[in-house]
Amino acid sequence: MTQKHNQRQRQQIVIVGAGFGGFQAAQSMANADADVLLIDRNNYSTFVPLLYQVATAQLEPSLVAYPIRTKLRGMRNIQFLQSQVELVDFDKQLVKTTAGPFAYDYLVLATGTQSSYHSIPGAPEYTFPLKTLTDAIALRNHILRCFEKASRMTDPHEQQRLLTFLIVGGGATGVEVAGALAELMRGALQRDFIDLAGEGRLVLIQSGSGLLQEFSQRLGNYTHRHLEAMGIKVCLNTRIAQVEATRVILADGEAIATATVIWAAGLEATRPDLAPSLPPSPKRKLLVRDTLQLVDYANVYAIGDVAAFAQDHQSLSGVAPEALQQGVFVARNLRRQLRNQPLQSFAYWNKGRLAIIGGYGGVGRILGINFGGILAWALWLAVHVVYLPGYRSRLLVLLTWLQNYVLGDRASRQILPAIAQLNIDKELSALSVRSNPDDYL
Amino acid sequence: MTQKHNQRQRQQIVIVGAGFGGFQAAQSMANADADVLLIDRNNYSTFVPLLYQVATAQLEPSLVAYPIRTKLRGMRNIQFLQSQVELVDFDKQLVKTTAGPFAYDYLVLATGTQSSYHSIPGAPEYTFPLKTLTDAIALRNHILRCFEKASRMTDPHEQQRLLTFLIVGGGATGVEVAGALAELMRGALQRDFIDLAGEGRLVLIQSGSGLLQEFSQRLGNYTHRHLEAMGIKVCLNTRIAQVEATRVILADGEAIATATVIWAAGLEATRPDLAPSLPPSPKRKLLVRDTLQLVDYANVYAIGDVAAFAQDHQSLSGVAPEALQQGVFVARNLRRQLRNQPLQSFAYWNKGRLAIIGGYGGVGRILGINFGGILAWALWLAVHVVYLPGYRSRLLVLLTWLQNYVLGDRASRQILPAIAQLNIDKELSALSVRSNPDDYL
Repeated sequence: MTQKHNQRQRQQIVIVGAGFGGFQAAQSMANADADVLLIDRNNYSTFVPLLYQVATAQLEPSLVAYPIRTKLRGMRNIQFLQSQVELVDFDKQLVKTTAGPFAYDYLVLATGTQSSYHSIPGAPEYTFPLKTLTDAIALRNHILRCFEKASRMTDPHEQQRLLTFLIVGGGATGVEVAGALAELMRGALQRDFIDLAGEGRLVLIQSGSGLLQEFSQRLGNYTHRHLEAMGIKVCLNTRIAQVEATRVILADGEAIATATVIWAAGLEATRPDLAPSLPPSPKRKLLVRDTLQLVDYANVYAIGDVAAFAQDHQSLSGVAPEALQQGVFVARNLRRQLRNQPLQSFAYWNKGRLAIIGGYGGVGRILGINFGGILAWALWLAVHVVYLPGYRSRLLVLLTWLQNYVLGDRASRQILPAIAQLNIDKELSALSVRSNPDDYL
Repeated sequence: MTQKHNQRQRQQIVIVGAGFGGFQAAQSMANADADVLLIDRNNYSTFVPLLYQVATAQLEPSLVAYPIRTKLRGMRNIQFLQSQVELVDFDKQLVKTTAGPFAYDYLVLATGTQSSYHSIPGAPEYTFPLKTLTDAIALRNHILRCFEKASRMTDPHEQQRLLTFLIVGGGATGVEVAGALAELMRGALQRDFIDLAGEGRLVLIQSGSGLLQEFSQRLGNYTHRHLEAMGIKVCLNTRIAQVEATRVILADGEAIATATVIWAAGLEATRPDLAPSLPPSPKRKLLVRDTLQLVDYANVYAIGDVAAFAQDHQSLSGVAPEALQQGVFVARNLRRQLRNQPLQSFAYWNKGRLAIIGGYGGVGRILGINFGGILAWALWLAVHVVYLPGYRSRLLVLLTWLQNYVLGDRASRQILPAIAQLNIDKELSALSVRSNPDDYL
């Protein structure tokens, strides 16, 4: 890697982030006349749409985490670096990482989004986000621990609190987590904890007047009825005022005692530190031209959720196909720019939209046709297993779903042990903190 | 659970530890005329023989971790408690846990073993054990991180240090880890890190004069040749004097620069705190009678690796079948004791012994016949997939092995993120430390 990066005659392209957009952009730059460095903090690319299934004990974490180097094996002009980006210096054309600085001629920012808490007190400290594999495993461990703890609880109020799960947000993520959690609780956990049967309580809190507002009102109503039929209490037009360690306080003053608040209520761009800094923008997104270049820098592109791209005066909605198409497109524009050819404008080709509810329910809009029910549910699963990278993961996910839905069981119910940090940058003496005591309740 | 434990007319049996012995003992107590409480610090039972495959990126962690409650679902007289045992009080007949005290009429201790470092300075701090799932994931993360770090290292000495892996111990665990690590390095990692091809270095250090000394000398020599053919340097009659943060110092003064020392050189019993304490014993094991009752307490049994059981004047060797047979047996003796019938003496029925080397090599001794080669290798895999609990895990492990051995690849190469501790016993305010920053190099 170092050798290649010293050969300054070849143009250097740095891509920050190996999510849907960045990983696709790197792949699409294979055999281009430039050296590409793909940087991510993890050595895997996370298949975010299935994270909720990891969080609800349905899938093993590794099935939705694709090792980045696998796909890049044949691509000799593409290098991977596992590191954290600390600063992007536009003037010096440097990306500063925890592994040192890297110079670029062209830069692609694909750093995605993170939870946004709308300044609600306590939300950052006391709610569970669901954006990374870490989040999903932590949430799964927590849900299973709540049941383990509740099973030996004599105080009925405390038991009820441990078995009350609040989901904040009535968009696709909130709905799918609520449904999957209901399936988990009335399936595997009901059989694991017979003394607690029927004690679990699920509440979905939505600030707006309907669920899945990116779909039609009819489908939103269908989703509402379907979730309620699964035993979930749906609260529309309801806002959170504050989150505390042991309860949530709603805007109308009502308090709900709970040990678990899942945050699916808002996102903002994950913007790395930039020098010079860019002006504030809605949801902290980076303003881009039609070509996906930054408004301010012609040699810097932004793609995926970090980019503020609007089509037909509407922002993109933040789904994977948008990032994937932008990843393919940015590679084409980069190749044009390398050859000093004129750049083209990006246009998103919307194939439709699907959302899964659980309990054999889903909704969809394809070619302008709205539909809900088991067809949308099955189509959602089919589309996501097809897009999941890696034949092994696809096969194992299919087998797991077969078991889940035929037997009504969940296999991945292990509370994974805590793995203490080993930071080999800070000398190996850090090893002494490696083997912390196994976790216990 | 609490209700049942208040009904003092039924006898209370507590089993500490859900490894091979304890988990089997609980299952064999199904429908007995007593209430059984099985306690483990994890909510899963670890299939220890395959841990080395987790550590070498071959198997997903969850495939070797069986959720304890799954097997106990039909057994109404058996309860499970996830907790850490802090003290066993023989006089008051209490097991004190982090979840409170539990009274017993009969107690089964099945707490297994942990690494023993023979007072070698630095070994507890700077070596990687391989006894728990935590150990295996931490070791896998570390090995993969060493390669990620080495790939961007300009100092050749430091690069060589990061790619030097020392295994201490020439018994079954040391041999199988060495072989599997060699397979990983010349397979998947060679393809992931083409710039580092051929740079990895594996050293197996054995204090004795031969490998696998529980087998014949001929098979030990075969194992030695086989490992060397796989590119592993085997050092016999070699002792470690000291382990430091960046190197190992041998007894003859030679220093080996390394970032990874894997400890497979010795075990001692994991003895919980006991009151009154029992006298010291070899390897801290609990002295038992032929009936597996403690020498000192007739209502307390010890089984598996924590028990000092000798047959034909020889200690048992610490393999899974011994613990499983003792688990079945202790349940029979408990049932006899509940009915005031005379107890019987345990005898281990040795079906033979197998060890896997890797690279299609293994050794075995069955019905007095010694054999080595691909037959022993295949037989080892077959036996372990049969004994692995859960049909799903068996199928997925088989599919994974097929992929590993046919394609020479390893799928589980994700450096799993660090999951910070969430201890819901210490109030939910502990949530604030839950979402620590994702790990990076």
